Amino acid sequence: MDMIELGRRAKKASFELGHMSTTQKNACLETAARYLVENSEKILKENRLDIEAARKNGTPEPMIDRLSLDEKRIGQMADGLMQVRSLADPIGEIIYSTVRPNGLEICQKRVPFGVIGIIYESRPNVTADSFGLCFKTGNAAILRGGSDAFHSNIVIGEVLRKAAADTGCPEDAIQIVRSTDHESVNQMMKMNRYIDLLIPRGGQGLIRNVVENSTVPVIETGTGNCHVYVDASADIDMAVRIIINAKTQRTGVCNACESLVIHRDIADKALPAIGRALREKNCELRGDERARNIFGDMKEASEDDWGREYLDLIASVRVVDSIDEAIDHINRYHTGHSDTIVTNDYNNARRFLDQIDSAAVYVNASTRFTDGNEFGFGAEIGISTQKLHARGPMGLKELTTTKYVIYGNGQIRE
Amino acid sequence: MDMIELGRRAKKASFELGHMSTTQKNACLETAARYLVENSEKILKENRLDIEAARKNGTPEPMIDRLSLDEKRIGQMADGLMQVRSLADPIGEIIYSTVRPNGLEICQKRVPFGVIGIIYESRPNVTADSFGLCFKTGNAAILRGGSDAFHSNIVIGEVLRKAAADTGCPEDAIQIVRSTDHESVNQMMKMNRYIDLLIPRGGQGLIRNVVENSTVPVIETGTGNCHVYVDASADIDMAVRIIINAKTQRTGVCNACESLVIHRDIADKALPAIGRALREKNCELRGDERARNIFGDMKEASEDDWGREYLDLIASVRVVDSIDEAIDHINRYHTGHSDTIVTNDYNNARRFLDQIDSAAVYVNASTRFTDGNEFGFGAEIGISTQKLHARGPMGLKELTTTKYVIYGNGQIRE
Repeated sequence: MDMIELGRRAKKASFELGHMSTTQKNACLETAARYLVENSEKILKENRLDIEAARKNGTPEPMIDRLSLDEKRIGQMADGLMQVRSLADPIGEIIYSTVRPNGLEICQKRVPFGVIGIIYESRPNVTADSFGLCFKTGNAAILRGGSDAFHSNIVIGEVLRKAAADTGCPEDAIQIVRSTDHESVNQMMKMNRYIDLLIPRGGQGLIRNVVENSTVPVIETGTGNCHVYVDASADIDMAVRIIINAKTQRTGVCNACESLVIHRDIADKALPAIGRALREKNCELRGDERARNIFGDMKEASEDDWGREYLDLIASVRVVDSIDEAIDHINRYHTGHSDTIVTNDYNNARRFLDQIDSAAVYVNASTRFTDGNEFGFGAEIGISTQKLHARGPMGLKELTTTKYVIYGNGQIRE
Repeated sequence: MDMIELGRRAKKASFELGHMSTTQKNACLETAARYLVENSEKILKENRLDIEAARKNGTPEPMIDRLSLDEKRIGQMADGLMQVRSLADPIGEIIYSTVRPNGLEICQKRVPFGVIGIIYESRPNVTADSFGLCFKTGNAAILRGGSDAFHSNIVIGEVLRKAAADTGCPEDAIQIVRSTDHESVNQMMKMNRYIDLLIPRGGQGLIRNVVENSTVPVIETGTGNCHVYVDASADIDMAVRIIINAKTQRTGVCNACESLVIHRDIADKALPAIGRALREKNCELRGDERARNIFGDMKEASEDDWGREYLDLIASVRVVDSIDEAIDHINRYHTGHSDTIVTNDYNNARRFLDQIDSAAVYVNASTRFTDGNEFGFGAEIGISTQKLHARGPMGLKELTTTKYVIYGNGQIRE
C-alpha cells in the first residue's frame, strides 16, 4: 500500500476515533492487551525471524537484546496497555471558557490531533506503547519502526488491529508502514495533509533527520547533556548521593548526568568526596585544571567534553567562581533537558530555577527523575527538548490539541 | 551585523528579559508608547522614503495605503502597546503541580520561549505590535519586515530600542533585520540555536516558504477557506444575517466566509433569500447544479472553487443531502480555520462541533469572530491553523512555553 493511501485511511479512522467514548476506547485497549498475551507464540515466532536476521548481519548482542521478545516482555507490553487504559481520558476537557459581552460562549476544548506519525528504532515494544497512547487520546497512528524489528512490528500491528476491529473501533487506528526503505520516512515527513504530528523516537541521527527535513510539525525528543551544579552551600553528602545516582544508576539514558560543575569555595572538600565515590563506580572523570589540581585521578577535559552526552561511565568536571559562571556554563553547553543545583542557599536556588533554560530544573534532587512515570503521568511517549507545544516528559495531554467551540444565537460582527 | 550576531544578542537579551518583573516590562511598554508619539515626525519622514520608493516601483494604491503612516496610525500603534501593557502577564503562572510519593514537588511553570523571530510583510504597525506582545511575555524579538517598509521599520525599531534602554531593559529585546534580501530569511529559518520560534505573518507564499524550509519550530498563521452550513432546521433570517456578515462585512480577511453549504430540505426557501441578499451586496455566486436550479443568478462552480479562499466578493454554493455530506465536504475542502452551522437541531449542532476539524467551530454565529480581540485576549499575533502548540487566535499565552521546576531535599531515583 502506498503511503498516501495509508495517510488517507488514517485520516478517515481519526474522524471516527475523535468522537469515541472513553468506555469504547478502554474496551479496545483491554482487548488488545489480552490479544497480545494470547498471541504470544505467533509474536515470538516472527520476533525470531528478526533476531536471526540481526545475527546474520552481525548485530552486536546489546542491540539483539533490545530487539528480543519473550513471554515476560510481551506481558509487559500488555501491562502497559492496561496502564494506559486506567489513565484519565483528557479528550473533551474544557481548558478555558469565556462569555463575551455579545453573549457568545467561547470554549477551548481538548481534542485529538488526528493522525500521529511515529518513526522509531529497534525495540518492538514501542509499537504497542505508541499505539496505546495515541489510541487513548483518539489519534490514529502511523508507525514506522526500524527495519531490524520489521516482522515483530508487523505481527504486533496485526494483533492490535484485530483488537480494534473486534471492539467496534476502526482498525486503521493503527497502521504499520510495511516498508523498510528510507523513502517511506521521506514521504511521511512531507504528508502534511494526512499527518498532523510527527514524533521521532531514537538516536540523534534519526531525530536530526526528521527535525531538519519534515514539513509536518515535529516534536523533538531529545538528547540530554544534564548537569549537576554543587553550590558553595551544598550539603556534601547529599551532593555525593545525587551525583552518584544521576551519573551511575543508569548511564545510557537521556536524563543521566554527564557533567559536574562545582563552586570553588566548596571544591576542596566536595570534589575529593565526589571524585572518590565516582571512581569507585569506575566512572572516568575529565576535568579542567582547577578540578585536576584538587582531585588528581582525572583526565584533562577538552572543549569538546563540555558539550558531550557520553551515555557512558564518564563525567566532565568544572570548577567555577560563582553561580553566575555556573549558570552561563550550563546554558551554553547543555541540551535543555535536565539540570540540578545542590544548595542550601534560598536565593541561589531561585536563581538557578529561573535562569537555567531547561525542560526540567531541580533543586536538591537527581536529574534521573525526568520521566513520565516519575512525574506521575502514568505513561510517556518521550521527553521533549523543544519549547513548542510540549517540553519535558510527554504524557497523554501532550498528544492532544485544542479547538475553539463557540455557541451563539445569531451573533454577527459589528 | 550578521544574522548569527543578531541571534547571539537576542539570546543574551532573552536571559535578562525572562526574569524581569511585570512592573519593569510595563514601564518599558509605556515609555515605548510615549516615544512613538513623541517621535512621530521622525517616523513619518522615514515612512515617506518608503512611500516614495513604492510609488517609483509602481506599487498599487491599496498596498501604498497599507504602508502609509500618519499621526493617527502612529497613535494607534502607541495605543496598542498601552493595551498590551494593561494585559495580565502570563509569565510565572504554575499551570500544573503535583507532590510525588517521594516528596518531590513538581511544578509546571509558564516561561518565555526565549527568542521569537517574526517574518512579515508591508504594514509597519506590525513592528510595534510584535514587539509589544513578545516583550510582555519576556521574549526577545528578531523582526524581519518587508523591504517596502524598510525605513519605517528601522526607525520604529530604533524608537523601541531607546525605550528599552531608557527603562533599564536590554535594548536587544528588539532587533530589526537590516537586510532586505532573501538570504536573511533563509538564515533565520536555520538558526535553531538562537531562535526558539518563528512566526510568518503575511501571504500564502511567505507562509508556505517558511513552513517548508524552516528547521526552527514554526507556527503557521493561516489562510481561511471558511464555511457556513445552513442546516435543514435553520432559522432562515438568521442564516441570511450570518452569511451576509461572514461574507461581506470585510472580504480580504482570513475569517471571512468563502463557501456556503445548504441542506436540500431548506434550499428551496433559504437559497433564494440568501442569494438575493448576497447579490444585493454585489457578491458573485458560483454554485453546483442543484443550487443553480433553485437560484438562477449564479455561475457554475468548478471543482477548483470548493477549495478557494477568494478574499473577494465571491462565494461558492453547494446543496447537500445530509449533515454528513456537509461535514465531509467541509472537512475535505476547508483550511481548518473557522466554520459555522446555522441550525436549531441539538444533535446536529453537537455533531458539527465535534466533527468539523477546525480551529474555531461555531453554532449560529458569524465566522468573523475568530479574532484575538473578539475572543477577549486583548491582543493577537495571528491565527494559527496548525495543531501544534497553538490553534486559533494567539494571544500572550501562546507566546510562552513551560518548564518543570522541581523542589527536592535529596531525592535520588531507586
